Amino acid sequence: MTANAADPRLAEALKATGEAVNAELDRLLPLPDGPEARVIEAMRYASLDGGKRLRPLLVMLSASLFNVAPSSALRVGCAVEMIHCYSLVHDDLPCMDDDDLRRGRPTCHRQFDEATALLAGDALLTRAFEVLAAEPTHADPAVRCQLVWELAHASGGAGMVGGQMVDLRAAELSMDVAAITRLQQMKTGRLICFSCEAGAVLAKAAPNLRQALKNYAHDLGLAFQIADDLLDVEGDVSQVGKRVGKDADAGKATFVSLLGVERARAQARMLADQACAHLDPFGDKADLLRATARFVVERQA
Amino acid sequence: MTANAADPRLAEALKATGEAVNAELDRLLPLPDGPEARVIEAMRYASLDGGKRLRPLLVMLSASLFNVAPSSALRVGCAVEMIHCYSLVHDDLPCMDDDDLRRGRPTCHRQFDEATALLAGDALLTRAFEVLAAEPTHADPAVRCQLVWELAHASGGAGMVGGQMVDLRAAELSMDVAAITRLQQMKTGRLICFSCEAGAVLAKAAPNLRQALKNYAHDLGLAFQIADDLLDVEGDVSQVGKRVGKDADAGKATFVSLLGVERARAQARMLADQACAHLDPFGDKADLLRATARFVVERQA
Repeated sequence: MTANAADPRLAEALKATGEAVNAELDRLLPLPDGPEARVIEAMRYASLDGGKRLRPLLVMLSASLFNVAPSSALRVGCAVEMIHCYSLVHDDLPCMDDDDLRRGRPTCHRQFDEATALLAGDALLTRAFEVLAAEPTHADPAVRCQLVWELAHASGGAGMVGGQMVDLRAAELSMDVAAITRLQQMKTGRLICFSCEAGAVLAKAAPNLRQALKNYAHDLGLAFQIADDLLDVEGDVSQVGKRVGKDADAGKATFVSLLGVERARAQARMLADQACAHLDPFGDKADLLRATARFVVERQA
Repeated sequence: MTANAADPRLAEALKATGEAVNAELDRLLPLPDGPEARVIEAMRYASLDGGKRLRPLLVMLSASLFNVAPSSALRVGCAVEMIHCYSLVHDDLPCMDDDDLRRGRPTCHRQFDEATALLAGDALLTRAFEVLAAEPTHADPAVRCQLVWELAHASGGAGMVGGQMVDLRAAELSMDVAAITRLQQMKTGRLICFSCEAGAVLAKAAPNLRQALKNYAHDLGLAFQIADDLLDVEGDVSQVGKRVGKDADAGKATFVSLLGVERARAQARMLADQACAHLDPFGDKADLLRATARFVVERQA
């Protein structure tokens, strides 16, 4: 299940990033000899050959604005992808969403077992920080520390995990658009924001340029989530690669249930345009980030 | 459930560390206003007021050998304790050990629910790295990066989580003393080793001194595990604070099942003596670490 981008240069970048991420994750997750190999197999199953690699793409593209070494950006992209993948593995567990299908394949706990999936998620989460802290990620330890801190802050109780907690309670809370926006900023927005800012962190860029990327990421993250809600309503399971209609089944308020399909779609496109406008300081160099914003709202998977 | 040490100076150090760790964790895990507060409550439930705080004690004592700032050591001790506590929360889940009781109280998923406990574990794991990477942990970012890397390496697929994977498969593998030793070195030894080395890392100590602490930790970790196996066979649930007889029920080989009670006890004491001998380079300054080794094998909980 690959998402095709209309822009041929972006399609090429998505393909190249996907291949580079797979090769690097393969290197970063070598299989050991001992009986602990099973958990590494599950980590590889959950992270190799899967998904759009949107977060690594955003890291690579933001890094390319500043001429950061691609090998540095790739490691950061793999770290954020490990966090994303661990969150999917834990999200799919029976005590959370109880899903059997992910990216068109059995979920990790269906392919292995629940305990192995739980541990594989824990180990992916841990490995992400090990990768960021290691010297090949950046020569300056202050930069590596900042990356560790930012990724932890974006993915912990004040970020992604906090958002998942709110999401679990969404049915009992009465969620309006403001509450859903906050929830989604925590659950998916913060990791997207980390990815977009990573290039500026790696380059020790000026604060105004980092802020421009943060503003771009803010709008992109919301546009992404609205598009996700639209796919959950309108998507086809064979294309989307996971169960659809989940939110309606769970009685959860979403951007689509609150705004309706047409207003939600218009809102996503408006946010994508707004995201692109934040990239003005970078001129033509940010064209692929602009194409990414359009791709995010038009994708079919 | 507090474990009492026979040595009055160690009893004092255990009490002081316990109080300092609780106060610091309380500061490091503030309750937010939003509905995500539930996951922070679960993190606090799983980490405040619990356990012997052996790992933070080891960090504090190893740091005191080098005159490291206690505030630095305390943050590192809290980070390793967060990792330890997350591993207990996930270990207790129904898909793992399915335990109802921990430290004499309902386990996290019994007190909250499975999804909240899963997320609380994830967030504690994440928070540990956020704390290590932040400036108050140490002025030198190279030291902070090294702490992040070492803790991640000790607790991931090649360390604690890998050991848990092997432990889950222990019944299907035929485990001899060498295999059990390797399993326990991964599952509990690596985190104990991190704790003992942390003082040397914080102080940028000479390699031979760091190696002495590593050797001490190696023997201490095994002694600790054998004592744990003995408590599982001989302990009383009201003192131990968790279910006993688990290993025998699960048909798992342990040091005690392989060596017998008497040889296991003798082995634990021999390892504690050996651990103490590695501390010779530190002279009297390491007396509390020596007392800790004796405490670890004589404890009743």
